[in-house]
Amino acid sequence: MCPEPSTNGVNGHDGQLPKPRPAELPYQTVGDFLSNTGRFKIIESTLREGEQFANAFFDTETKVKIATALSDFGVEYIELTSPAASPQSRSDLETICKLGLKSKILTHVRCNMEDARLAVECGVDGVDVVIGTSSFLQKHSHGKDMTYITKTAIEVINYIKSQNIEVRFSSEDSFRSDFVDLLSLYKAVDQVGVNRVGVADTIGCASPRQVYDLVRTLRGVVHCDIETHFHNDTGCAIANAHAALEAGATHIDTSVLGIGERNGITPLGGLLARMIVGNHEYVTTRYKLHKLKDIEDMVAEAVQINIPFNNPITGFCAFTHKAGIHAKAILNEPSTYEIINPADFGMSRYIHFSSRLTGWNVIKSRVEQLGLKMTDDQVKTLTSKIKAMADIRPLAIDDTDSIIRTFHLDLQEV
Amino acid sequence: MCPEPSTNGVNGHDGQLPKPRPAELPYQTVGDFLSNTGRFKIIESTLREGEQFANAFFDTETKVKIATALSDFGVEYIELTSPAASPQSRSDLETICKLGLKSKILTHVRCNMEDARLAVECGVDGVDVVIGTSSFLQKHSHGKDMTYITKTAIEVINYIKSQNIEVRFSSEDSFRSDFVDLLSLYKAVDQVGVNRVGVADTIGCASPRQVYDLVRTLRGVVHCDIETHFHNDTGCAIANAHAALEAGATHIDTSVLGIGERNGITPLGGLLARMIVGNHEYVTTRYKLHKLKDIEDMVAEAVQINIPFNNPITGFCAFTHKAGIHAKAILNEPSTYEIINPADFGMSRYIHFSSRLTGWNVIKSRVEQLGLKMTDDQVKTLTSKIKAMADIRPLAIDDTDSIIRTFHLDLQEV
Repeated sequence: MCPEPSTNGVNGHDGQLPKPRPAELPYQTVGDFLSNTGRFKIIESTLREGEQFANAFFDTETKVKIATALSDFGVEYIELTSPAASPQSRSDLETICKLGLKSKILTHVRCNMEDARLAVECGVDGVDVVIGTSSFLQKHSHGKDMTYITKTAIEVINYIKSQNIEVRFSSEDSFRSDFVDLLSLYKAVDQVGVNRVGVADTIGCASPRQVYDLVRTLRGVVHCDIETHFHNDTGCAIANAHAALEAGATHIDTSVLGIGERNGITPLGGLLARMIVGNHEYVTTRYKLHKLKDIEDMVAEAVQINIPFNNPITGFCAFTHKAGIHAKAILNEPSTYEIINPADFGMSRYIHFSSRLTGWNVIKSRVEQLGLKMTDDQVKTLTSKIKAMADIRPLAIDDTDSIIRTFHLDLQEV
Repeated sequence: MCPEPSTNGVNGHDGQLPKPRPAELPYQTVGDFLSNTGRFKIIESTLREGEQFANAFFDTETKVKIATALSDFGVEYIELTSPAASPQSRSDLETICKLGLKSKILTHVRCNMEDARLAVECGVDGVDVVIGTSSFLQKHSHGKDMTYITKTAIEVINYIKSQNIEVRFSSEDSFRSDFVDLLSLYKAVDQVGVNRVGVADTIGCASPRQVYDLVRTLRGVVHCDIETHFHNDTGCAIANAHAALEAGATHIDTSVLGIGERNGITPLGGLLARMIVGNHEYVTTRYKLHKLKDIEDMVAEAVQINIPFNNPITGFCAFTHKAGIHAKAILNEPSTYEIINPADFGMSRYIHFSSRLTGWNVIKSRVEQLGLKMTDDQVKTLTSKIKAMADIRPLAIDDTDSIIRTFHLDLQEV
């Protein structure tokens, strides 16, 4: 094979990636030259992958709203549905290309000249070309073999490049494709000057170690950027994106809340939750994190879903601490049980004190919040009373505050 | 350090793990001797970690229902809140120990003799002992140093073992603890015969490669089982569990829907979605997967949350296919775009045909489902009509079926 020397993610075609910087994780002191975790780009696909979500129907106005918000948030690319999908899809793509957004506008088309020409006519900044390469898809979807795929890919790429437009070539279902075929194909399109090759876990089967191994090998074979796309069927979409960047990938596909085919792809917010750990400066300077919640709410409303209770960052309890031992430490120093500072995302922390799992340190803090004075021994007695009540039924904050105030009043009367 | 030779997860204290078997992933043909992905055990902590979820209040009846369902589902262990937390916690633990469930009953206590004695008195099968080992927790939580921690740990473990009860010793916030301290501590408790050591990503900061490296090293240091516990703050809880098993861990902590402190831990259903890929026989023979949805619904109701739209397996659209190119292939052969067979979990597949992204193959299939007959050219014309309507507004299934029937009627009349 004799691969060309790796550029370690410092891309030949797109020189805008910032310099690598050492990782910031408290427990990771050895630098990793291959890693792009501190200099990645986001291809936001809510308006393409997200439109494939069961509930999604985006009218023009909604698409414009979402694209504008994403551009303002700071994502580098926005990907839209193919103009070949329907007349309205084409017209919406043209409309969004004309908005003059800061983000580059991409569309995602099948690997054929007809689709490529249509995409170029719409005024996009880049075209994302895709074809299935697994034996499953060769057999049951398009019925084309690798020779035909390679030939067509080169023709399409050469055409798009001749129009001075950025082009990405991606396989589909990459993790069930023949690995040697895949490397040959990627090497061929790299040699004709494709801007990015794409690795896609279309069915959501890959695990982080498989992703790392595949991307690291690919990094030694191609000079161009490497984009990755991960479905979440087995719950690894965020971890796989992180592993891909560690192995030298440069671009990650996301959608807001992860919406997409089936249970979706790497979510924008979840990816940033993962990346901010260890890459705080890059993430906080590049993206307007305070706007994440608004964007998620906008998309959730557009596709009529609830924000999952366990959503990273914006889930209703993402920064709620309950057990006494946790709450006590958090009161002393939030970093004890928080790896992400909620303030970075404009969120706030909440310490739960009304349950049977509460502890006296937390109750003491609440007593002080209420402006009352007690000794530690008194707070401990009070805590036992609260735990006894909370053992019988759920306690609202009001209930617990009443118990505290009554106890305090009784103390005064003694 | 001169570590003792690794047992590669074949545990000295608990000989019940089945023999290793080769991985079944279509793209992974090289076996991995270190991996326990085909022979792991589940420690289900909905009644301990899950009770620390913001919304959780489990009365005795609910606890009994959940424990019974989990035991019936096939989880090997059920972990409950410490009896030291409150009088009702203690009484509930005793009640559940007396149910005679198939799963072993554990409780999770602080590393001190008082809590250990209380746990033993309740009649549990095993005690999970925990203490914070990170400098953050040494400083801001309990204020104990490593010498004190080791001495206490050994005393507590010796006591619990003397009662013929299984004992696990876990650090807390393991990924921000001093690694050498951690290995010394684990080695010390392994030498006095602890059944399992526990690695806990208490703050949800770890990534799969860190997990793999830590667990693999630990696997060479201790003979006992290795339990792992992953929070989901940065969206890696499922992937980290998988990486831990690949590195030789033996036990994974889960909770139903992942409920726990903050946004929770590795979810039971999500873990099984991950593990069934590559370990189909182990997962399907060991757990009653058809009951997953009922258990999730029961817990969701008890803590008043909605099942997340993107929940693995049971999310409302986990097996819904929408884009024409996906749907066409799925109609030919489901494995093209599904890595998990929904029937394994008693779920079913749905092919979306009412959108602008639909394709003629899907409409042809619907035409046949409705018992109508058309030529391919007619179906293509019909598909254009449906896409044109779906471009204007969201189409319900009824709407699309009406368009199909009207089109068919018009054909008859020509």
